[in-house]
Formats: sequence, structure tokens, C-alpha cells
Amino acid sequence: MTTAAEVLARCAELDQHSAHPTHLERVHLTPEHAAANALVAGWMTRAGLTTWQDAAGNQYGRREGRAPGLPALLLGSHLDTVPDAGSYDGMLGVVLAVAVAERLGDRVGDLPFALEVVGFGDEEGARFGKALLGSCAVAGTWDPAWWRLRDADGTTLRRAFADFGLDPDRVGEAARRPEELVGYLEAHIEQGPYLEEADASLGYVTAIAGARRFVISVLGQARHAGGTPYERRKDALVGAAECITAVERLVRPSGCIATVGRIEAHPGAVNVIAGRADFTLDLRAATDEDRDAMWKRLEVELQGICDARGLGLTVVETHRAPAMPCAPWLTDAIVEGIAAAADPDPMGLWSRAGHDAMAIGAVTDVAMLFVRCHDGISHHPDEDVREIDVARALDALERAVLAVAERVEG
Amino acid sequence: MTTAAEVLARCAELDQHSAHPTHLERVHLTPEHAAANALVAGWMTRAGLTTWQDAAGNQYGRREGRAPGLPALLLGSHLDTVPDAGSYDGMLGVVLAVAVAERLGDRVGDLPFALEVVGFGDEEGARFGKALLGSCAVAGTWDPAWWRLRDADGTTLRRAFADFGLDPDRVGEAARRPEELVGYLEAHIEQGPYLEEADASLGYVTAIAGARRFVISVLGQARHAGGTPYERRKDALVGAAECITAVERLVRPSGCIATVGRIEAHPGAVNVIAGRADFTLDLRAATDEDRDAMWKRLEVELQGICDARGLGLTVVETHRAPAMPCAPWLTDAIVEGIAAAADPDPMGLWSRAGHDAMAIGAVTDVAMLFVRCHDGISHHPDEDVREIDVARALDALERAVLAVAERVEG
Repeated sequence: MTTAAEVLARCAELDQHSAHPTHLERVHLTPEHAAANALVAGWMTRAGLTTWQDAAGNQYGRREGRAPGLPALLLGSHLDTVPDAGSYDGMLGVVLAVAVAERLGDRVGDLPFALEVVGFGDEEGARFGKALLGSCAVAGTWDPAWWRLRDADGTTLRRAFADFGLDPDRVGEAARRPEELVGYLEAHIEQGPYLEEADASLGYVTAIAGARRFVISVLGQARHAGGTPYERRKDALVGAAECITAVERLVRPSGCIATVGRIEAHPGAVNVIAGRADFTLDLRAATDEDRDAMWKRLEVELQGICDARGLGLTVVETHRAPAMPCAPWLTDAIVEGIAAAADPDPMGLWSRAGHDAMAIGAVTDVAMLFVRCHDGISHHPDEDVREIDVARALDALERAVLAVAERVEG
Repeated sequence: MTTAAEVLARCAELDQHSAHPTHLERVHLTPEHAAANALVAGWMTRAGLTTWQDAAGNQYGRREGRAPGLPALLLGSHLDTVPDAGSYDGMLGVVLAVAVAERLGDRVGDLPFALEVVGFGDEEGARFGKALLGSCAVAGTWDPAWWRLRDADGTTLRRAFADFGLDPDRVGEAARRPEELVGYLEAHIEQGPYLEEADASLGYVTAIAGARRFVISVLGQARHAGGTPYERRKDALVGAAECITAVERLVRPSGCIATVGRIEAHPGAVNVIAGRADFTLDLRAATDEDRDAMWKRLEVELQGICDARGLGLTVVETHRAPAMPCAPWLTDAIVEGIAAAADPDPMGLWSRAGHDAMAIGAVTDVAMLFVRCHDGISHHPDEDVREIDVARALDALERAVLAVAERVEG
């Protein structure tokens, strides 16, 4: 039986497949993506699963239920990371799913569904800006406009597919039909402090907030840093800085969450006033209504700041996901699993972070299990989980699969 | 005789030697630097000068005065540019100097000094962060610590010297001794609006303000954009944004000038709170005392902002130049030149921008001639000068050389 210690060791082994020797960065359609898929495929095989990589670069394994060709209960998460990432965001969910399949072993053959495990190739969107590329392909919500997205080196998504050995024109084959699936269960570190504050190992997710993401450009005029008096400056970077502080000022008391994670000033020289400053904005809230109302307020505020400074403002929305409610019947199975493994009255919480389950919700019911993480830290090398919590997650997820089977049997 | 139209055509010809086909960027020790040197050397030869490239990559031409080996009056400016530069900052001064040598022609042989023209290889500091590398080598103020400076690709200055065909260990040979030089005259576009506002073609410089430059790092904690509540955030980029707006708020009413031209957030992903934000600060004032007092205020202010947010702050000073007063006797010669060519009562102004003359002032007396530019625009492709002003600058600089000769005789 696969243990929590083994799960943690596998997460550490995945860390070896990184773009950098000293820190973890594994983005979509890279050699390290391929290597991670191969490593996970080996574990899947050892767990008794039949494996394949789909037309979008997602790694799958499947074991048939009591009859061949039954609809599948899908377990999984993603294998890609942000730059300088921790070891668990995404990977823990995939490794847990493989371990649960291994623990169930021959009992899968008694289930009223096939059991599938998936490791999605892109959830973070770190390479092409657009998140959830892997799970959107599976959900059948692929947008052909994405082919023209480019990474920081100018490589298009279409070209990256081909370089990875995939045929862009066949991406549609990655899409699953609703009748092929029973549902989707995803285990994931919480990436927030709430379970730790409640002294709880595990929690269930009620809904996943949908982020909107923007690239905001403030347009001024590049001029000499010494020779240009203040009254003649159209300094795009000071304008952008005022916008960024305004975002915090408006959003912080609102219950929404906004983050500016990236910024660039052009031309970007120490002695040249910035003629343009581009920054990203990631905006989330408990409901789409709250989020969209906040964006309307922000847009007015940022326009006002730029108008007052004689600066231009352009906004491009790069990502927009609706909030995804978790299916009550599947969530009940997760709750039953947590109750058996850890906590008779588990905590439910809405996910501030996006997850593959958001995309998969377009094609089948979804539910999520959250695992406590240290100090709410994620997207950082200090990301950490306790072995006892991983052991409880293994028990809970295994039990949840059986609970889903009871509900499917009806 | 070289005309203003020819001077402008030569500036345009230099634009061809750029790192980019569509815009001008020519930084230190690059193939385009070598090409610009070669082009200027050809013009120097046509002007009757003997040419050489010195041990620091500066391009020289010399014509002897009434006896061989006399101390030289040095005319010049720089040939490097900022990214996405205009055509005149630096280059106009070099091309004017070559043209004046050509116009003087055989009359140089009557002068009580040799006439030298120099095109410095680095004034902007765009590649290695440290400005005035070319003129510091000539002034004998080279700091061996600079060898370890790296460009954006990680190439050290030492390595770049070698790649350019220069021997780093011989950089000392570029240094001139005070007794070799009579003085240094530099013509340059104003890079500010004051001459245009006064409807004047030319002006003389009273002193060159010395900039201090810093790289300021705000240190927070990289965390997941969704999962981290505001009260747990240590968002380095919001802290940096507050610092940048504070710099404007404090400096703008003070008479000093501060510019933040470059910023970077780490890890720089749309969905990760910035764990670190680095930005540059360029600070200038009419006097070193005003500038240093302002920096003291800024340091306290920035530290307070970071303390209040639980952020760290580190500051590295990357450049510090004292204000350089222009020598009255050489400036008198410039004034005489302007009076003869353009304006009996020329305008004097302090230079907010740094110039090679600041560095050369360490080894010989310096003076500067400013040429009106359009709308004060510089460090931008829209940099522009009027042909009539260039014609007057040619006349004024030629006359100034003769006026220096009278003073040296007298």
C-alpha cells in the first residue's frame, strides 16, 4: 500500500524535472513537462493503470471497473508549476490520485465505474498567460484563438504543441464527452491559512472563485530623466505605481482579492522616464457579481488616475473564469471521506485559488478535497504539508471513491 | 566646408548602426559600437585627423597644432545610446566636433595646441548600469570593481572588453595626463525645454549636476495570489509602488529631479504575489548638497513605508557623480562663440543631465555648449534639432576653438 511518506517522496522526485537546477519551474510543453509525464506514467503503470498522453499533453491512466468501457470517475490535478514553485501545488493531487488507485488495486474491478487518474499539463498559465490549457482541452472548451498566444521567447502555443510532438489540429481529441465521465475529484493543498487556523487536516470545497486577469498598460512619454521638468513629464511608471496602490486601497476592504504580480517599464533604462508601463491584475471574489462590480470600480479609478496625469490607459482581459460550484452529491462523498479519515465535522470553504476542477466542471460534476498547508504559503519553495495530513488525505480520498461508488449504485 | 545639413545626415547615418532594425540602440562594446567607431574614424580621416581607438574603446582623431606634440584641446561627446534612442544625444556633439576640425582645416596648424576629437564609447551606462565608462577611462578614474559589472545577459565588463578586442589589463593606457590637455569642449543637445522657451538656439552650461543612482529592492514574500488574505501578504510590488509614488511626492516640490525608470517584480507571474521588487532611482539637483539632503529624506521615507508593511528594504548605490562646474575661462570662449554666431547675450543654464564633461573634469578644464532641441524631448526617437541651430552651433564651436587659442596665447 502506498504510504504518505511515499507520496511525499514522489513529490520530491518530480521536483527534479525543472527548467533550473536550483529551483522548480516546470511550465507547459517543455522537456521537463515531458519528463514529469513519463515519471507519472511509470507510477500509474505500477498502480495497475493503462496509460496514455492525450492530444493536449495531459498524462492519463485508467483501470476498468466491473465492466470494460464504463464511464470513469476521474481523479487528478496538474503537473505544471509557477516559476520558483513549491513541490505540492498540483503535484500532490496527482500523486495522491495515483496512490489511491494503487491502494484500491483489484477492488477497482468491483466499482460501477472505471477509475482514471489525470495529470494536467497546464493549470498555472505561467508560460502562455492563459491558465487551465490542459483541463480546458479535456472539457472541450478550447478556444482556437489561444493558438496565437506567445511565451516570453515569442514561441506561439501552436508551435509549442508541434515542438512537443503534438498535432495542434487534433487537440479536439483530448475533449471528453459528459457521458464518458461520472465526475471529477481533485485533492489540492489549500494555498490559504484557514484550515491551519482551524487546526484541521482536511477540508471540502464549496465553490471555486473565478479569477479575471488583465494586462493593464499605462502610456506616457519616454524622456530624458535629467532634462525633463516635472511639469513636462508623462511618467508611465509613476502612473502605474499610483494605480497599483489604488488597487490595494479599493480592494482590500471589499472582501475581494487583487494581485499585481508582474510589471515592466519601457524602455526600462535607469536614466529614461518610462514611456509605457505594463502590469498584470488578477482579481477574485466569492461570487462573480462581487468580482465584476469591483472591476467596474477599479476601471473608473485607474482611468481617473491616468486622466489626471495626462497618461493613456489600455486594458486587455487575458483570462476570465466564472465561479464553479462543487456538486453537492460528490462533495457529500468527500465529506464522508474526511469524516472517516480525520474529522467528523469537516470545514467547508470557498477556494480563492483557481483549479482544474473549474474547467472540468464544464463537462462533468466536480468536487475538491483541501489539504492543510504550512502558513498558507504556496507558489513559493517554502510550500509545505505535514505527513499526517497527507496520510489522512489518502484515507479520505480512497473512502470518497468508494462513497461515490455507493451513490452511483444508488 | 561641412554644413549643418551634412552634420544632420551624418547623425542619420550613425542611426544605421543599431542593435535593432527598427529603432536605435547602440550600447557599449557591441558590434554596432565598433561600426560607429569605424564610421566616425572615416570622417575624422577626411577631416585631416590621425585616428586611433584607445584602450577603452573610445574613438579619437588628432591634428597637430603649430608644433608637434603640443597639449590638445579636446572636442567631443559620446557615441552610445539608451534603448530606443534619438539621433542626437551624444552623436551630435561628436559629429559637430569632427565638422569643426574639418572647417578649421589647415588653420589647425597655426593653433597653440593640437586639436583632438573624441567619441566616447559609453556615457549612458545602458549596458552595465555604470555610466561614463568611456570618459572615466580617459580621466584616469577607472575603478577595477567595475570589471565585475554584468549586463542583462550576465556578461561581465571584463569579458565584454575582451570580446571587443580590448585588453582589460591595459585600460590604464586610455588615461590622459593633465599636461597633455588644454581643456575639453562638448556640444550637446539641451535635453530640456529651457532654450526653446527662451527662443534661443544655443546656450552655455554653468555646471553639470551630478546624479546619484540606486537600485532599491523591496523584500516581501512570494505567495499564491488567490489563497493569501491581505493580512498575511507581504507584497513587495505594492510596497515598491508606494515607494515610487512617495519619491514623486517628496521630490517634485523640492527643485530636485528623481526618476524611477526600471522595475522588476519577482517571480513575476500573474498569479503570484511578488516576493521581491527591484527598481532604479536616479536623483539630481542643482547642487550636491541639495541632492544628498533629498536622498536622506527619501531613505527615511522609503524605510518607513517598508517597515509599516513588514517588508525589507535594501539599497545599493550604483553611481555617484559630484556636480562639475564648468571652467570660467573656457566658458568665456563658448560665450564668445555663441555671441558671434547666434546671440549677443546668451543664456547660461545648469545641466540636469550628466555628460562626459563631468568625468573629463577630473583631468582637465571643461566647458559645454547646449543646442536647442524640440520640446525638451531626449532619450526618445522624437529627439529633434533644427538645422539653423546646428549651423549656429558649428559657427559657435569653431569660433570658441579660436577663442580658446587666443586665451592660451594671451
